[in-house]
Amino acid sequence: VIAFASRWLETPAHVSERAGELPAGFRAAGVAAGLKPSGARDVALLVADAPETVSAARFTRSGVLAAPVVLCKERTRLEAIRVVVANSGNANAATGRRGLEDAARMQGAAAMAAGVREDQVAVASTGVIGLPLDVREVIKGIAAARPQLRADGAEDFSAAIRTTDAFAKDVAVDVALPSGTVRLTAQAKGAGMISPAFATMLCFVQTDAALSVEIADLLLGVCVKRSFDRVSVDGQLSTNDTAILMASGASGVVVVPESDDELRFGEALDWALRRLALAIVSDGEGSRRIGRVLVRGADEPAVATAARAVANSPLVKAALHGGDPNWGRIAQAVGGALHDVPLALDIWIEETQVCAGGVAVPFDEAALALAVSGEEVEYTVALGGEGAEAEVFFSDLSHDYVTINADYTT
Amino acid sequence: VIAFASRWLETPAHVSERAGELPAGFRAAGVAAGLKPSGARDVALLVADAPETVSAARFTRSGVLAAPVVLCKERTRLEAIRVVVANSGNANAATGRRGLEDAARMQGAAAMAAGVREDQVAVASTGVIGLPLDVREVIKGIAAARPQLRADGAEDFSAAIRTTDAFAKDVAVDVALPSGTVRLTAQAKGAGMISPAFATMLCFVQTDAALSVEIADLLLGVCVKRSFDRVSVDGQLSTNDTAILMASGASGVVVVPESDDELRFGEALDWALRRLALAIVSDGEGSRRIGRVLVRGADEPAVATAARAVANSPLVKAALHGGDPNWGRIAQAVGGALHDVPLALDIWIEETQVCAGGVAVPFDEAALALAVSGEEVEYTVALGGEGAEAEVFFSDLSHDYVTINADYTT
Repeated sequence: VIAFASRWLETPAHVSERAGELPAGFRAAGVAAGLKPSGARDVALLVADAPETVSAARFTRSGVLAAPVVLCKERTRLEAIRVVVANSGNANAATGRRGLEDAARMQGAAAMAAGVREDQVAVASTGVIGLPLDVREVIKGIAAARPQLRADGAEDFSAAIRTTDAFAKDVAVDVALPSGTVRLTAQAKGAGMISPAFATMLCFVQTDAALSVEIADLLLGVCVKRSFDRVSVDGQLSTNDTAILMASGASGVVVVPESDDELRFGEALDWALRRLALAIVSDGEGSRRIGRVLVRGADEPAVATAARAVANSPLVKAALHGGDPNWGRIAQAVGGALHDVPLALDIWIEETQVCAGGVAVPFDEAALALAVSGEEVEYTVALGGEGAEAEVFFSDLSHDYVTINADYTT
Repeated sequence: VIAFASRWLETPAHVSERAGELPAGFRAAGVAAGLKPSGARDVALLVADAPETVSAARFTRSGVLAAPVVLCKERTRLEAIRVVVANSGNANAATGRRGLEDAARMQGAAAMAAGVREDQVAVASTGVIGLPLDVREVIKGIAAARPQLRADGAEDFSAAIRTTDAFAKDVAVDVALPSGTVRLTAQAKGAGMISPAFATMLCFVQTDAALSVEIADLLLGVCVKRSFDRVSVDGQLSTNDTAILMASGASGVVVVPESDDELRFGEALDWALRRLALAIVSDGEGSRRIGRVLVRGADEPAVATAARAVANSPLVKAALHGGDPNWGRIAQAVGGALHDVPLALDIWIEETQVCAGGVAVPFDEAALALAVSGEEVEYTVALGGEGAEAEVFFSDLSHDYVTINADYTT
């Protein structure tokens, strides 16, 4: 469980952190199968015992999809996933027909190990692109993981899905709903700042609440949009991004549509995924600061485009790294993204307005320099107009990013 | 005149480099007016003596426009520019109404100095954003430049428009057209890799060919699209980008529409602007290599989007810097840009195919590592289909980029 805190993240009153077991109905394991040269854990298995388990899934929108993503989208009943099998060390991407067959072999082996139908197994991979997967070792790993499946196996599972992550990104909480308390756990991987393995994001969420397929899909969709879709590492989409929510119903607490239970459960899931997404942004060698840009305006696509442009700008990221309150770069990034339309921006860094109606305003330079020297820096941009708002969290651009990404391949 | 060579740039047979004077009908000067703390030249003046001089102009599409760009677009007869006045050291951007007035003052002073109408004066600025321009010093500079206007003043003019450029970016050639030889000179500024001053690109082109307004506009538009629009520094649009072509007609060689003269003149202009654009990409502390990505496919917007995505990807840029033939990053950048559509990419690095139909193909790793260790690296991507093609030239991502951009402000 991570001890990650951010001023942009407030734990709801009905959510209590408690380390310990997976929600009732789940068992997990993670083993070392030899895919990682380091000998660390690299094959992960998660099993939901109850046949009535429901699920939802979201995948990368990249046009270049890894084999396990293609397999899941085409061959897995995404509303009825009982098993997740994942490996780290090899992304099984750009591996062609053989890659699809290897993903299918993982699916088959995990189905046999867990005693479920193969179309109830989701497969995920992360690691190097373009190298064939050593599927024989993965299958041996699945066999080794099977007898180790335990209710307290989340940490091993989580370790086996990580690649360059500097720290674990797990959540384990009790959620007090009006109808009773449920358990919610989640394991994520992804290192924000440095992304030699293409910053693949994997996230698996388990709960013993009883969710309908529709609620599971709706809540996962909304919460992914507000978390993993709202962070920028380097503006890159991965070939392998996968998020899966599974609900066993074993608590007996039924979450009815449009109830207070649904609202509270949604708040807890939202908090959990945003926490994991922020942890991904903050991870990585050399990452010194996290930025948050909030853009307000009249038009939904425009505010989202502007927020992403600021978060992806290498000039803004480098200034964030250097503790440099260079607001001209914010103006330039927004102007470049929303081109052909004259803009009269208002810009704030932390609480200080630095630009009003497109014109520089005097500010206390020493105070602002101090304000941007902390671990989190907030930028606010008003395009004019009201009704639309978008935020994006982003990492800085450091020397270590260059060092690591200039020399990483096979 | 730059001694810049690239394998991606072939000098047409009818274009001969010859250092020396501006085309007949032009005089230029550049002086130090105290805007640059270094005391280097920072006010530039260019005058076309002939009333029949025609011109064309292109500006940044940014939504955040600097005052001189707004002034030129609204208050200058862009087809009849007789004078260019430019300053470096201050971009006169995000300076509000005062900035517009200061740009108008520059226009007025230059009109008086050259004895032309104020609406025949183009104004350009480059430097720091958000600080008021010391227009009094600029006006003194214009007064000082006036008596120094000379036919051999291009070098001083060029020095006075540069900011962080490590080397001059000038072209001076004779162009042998079927109807006679004309002179073509150009001065550009912009440092590709490092862009603390927002990588503003300024380019001024002079010729003594007689061009109609329509031909001047058409040729400048086409050639800017194939040059300055096809380079990526860090995916950022500047607030101040300006390109101006002026034709005095003093050679007596009249370029008639759809003639061989027009074709040959267009080739020369295309070569000149592409050379300057490549020089901009290659400039900068720490820039080690230039990349060229060529994307082929069936759909014009898709190939352009994919090429820009590769050129702007920090992962691709860092790999270019490190001499790392990491083609997975090319696949990932294209996939991320053209999302929601399955892609089966073919990818080549230099002459070596590394990916076919989305699948890795074996290649000689030692040979490819050697191939990407040169100063220029070429990437080719085929999306499938034919008929559309886009190229983008780009700089690498180095430690010095981070160093310079993390700590630069006022």
